[in-house]
Amino acid sequence: MDIALNLANCAFDAGEVPVGALVISPEGQIVSEAFNQVEKLQNPTAHAEILALEKACALLSRKRLVGYTLVVTLEPCPMCAAAAMHYRIDRIVFGAYDPKGGGVEHGACIFSHRQSLHRPEIIGGVQEQESQILLKNFFQQMRSTSC
Amino acid sequence: MDIALNLANCAFDAGEVPVGALVISPEGQIVSEAFNQVEKLQNPTAHAEILALEKACALLSRKRLVGYTLVVTLEPCPMCAAAAMHYRIDRIVFGAYDPKGGGVEHGACIFSHRQSLHRPEIIGGVQEQESQILLKNFFQQMRSTSC
Repeated sequence: MDIALNLANCAFDAGEVPVGALVISPEGQIVSEAFNQVEKLQNPTAHAEILALEKACALLSRKRLVGYTLVVTLEPCPMCAAAAMHYRIDRIVFGAYDPKGGGVEHGACIFSHRQSLHRPEIIGGVQEQESQILLKNFFQQMRSTSC
Repeated sequence: MDIALNLANCAFDAGEVPVGALVISPEGQIVSEAFNQVEKLQNPTAHAEILALEKACALLSRKRLVGYTLVVTLEPCPMCAAAAMHYRIDRIVFGAYDPKGGGVEHGACIFSHRQSLHRPEIIGGVQEQESQILLKNFFQQMRSTSC
């Protein structure tokens, strides 16, 4: 999670919502790293999780990530949670809970339906405060800049 | 929807789950077209809707599709429905309902939560039978090939 938080800091410095993500192999190796790039790529789906998952599959030349772990600083939104389901990721470890935009423990609760094709292990709230502080600082800065 | 069904047929011919999608401008012009490319791209997120939405934004050099319509032959999965939400698409017109994998009228019901940032108009069941027959034929063919 320290590495994911560093990636989130990179997003912050780039003017992106500070979220960082990485994919870890069953052997504990980091396969891919990414941070939010919605503004840079002008693509609202360029979330850290999607970019890290895509990168991992491209590097491994495969389309599923069975046995792999997604680590991300913020609770994934419904799109990212459902993408992780399509990738058949085994475990999602996330930092801050996101009652407004999260789709794992809130709102759509992607893995809680009987239609859910795949249910990864979920570990939320890891280094929650660090992630929350980063997000809070970012949005405070955004508000003060836009005034 | 006829054009989306033609695109779904292209997916069928390419050995992909037959789903086609297009994005239509507020003036009624087709902005982008795509069909499922999960196998070709070895990317489980390369659904017709995601590809059509990405292409539309790239062509228009913008990151939101306010006023635009997504037409797709099958009820979007939760990932695609949530992506359409991030793109702020105004209307989703889909063909066959998908009780197993759909995320608009089934399962995660992406737009039915108070956390949903955006609620497009939904028109489902348009030329439902044509889409259903195509999907049924595809999976029948898959089963007979794998026996």
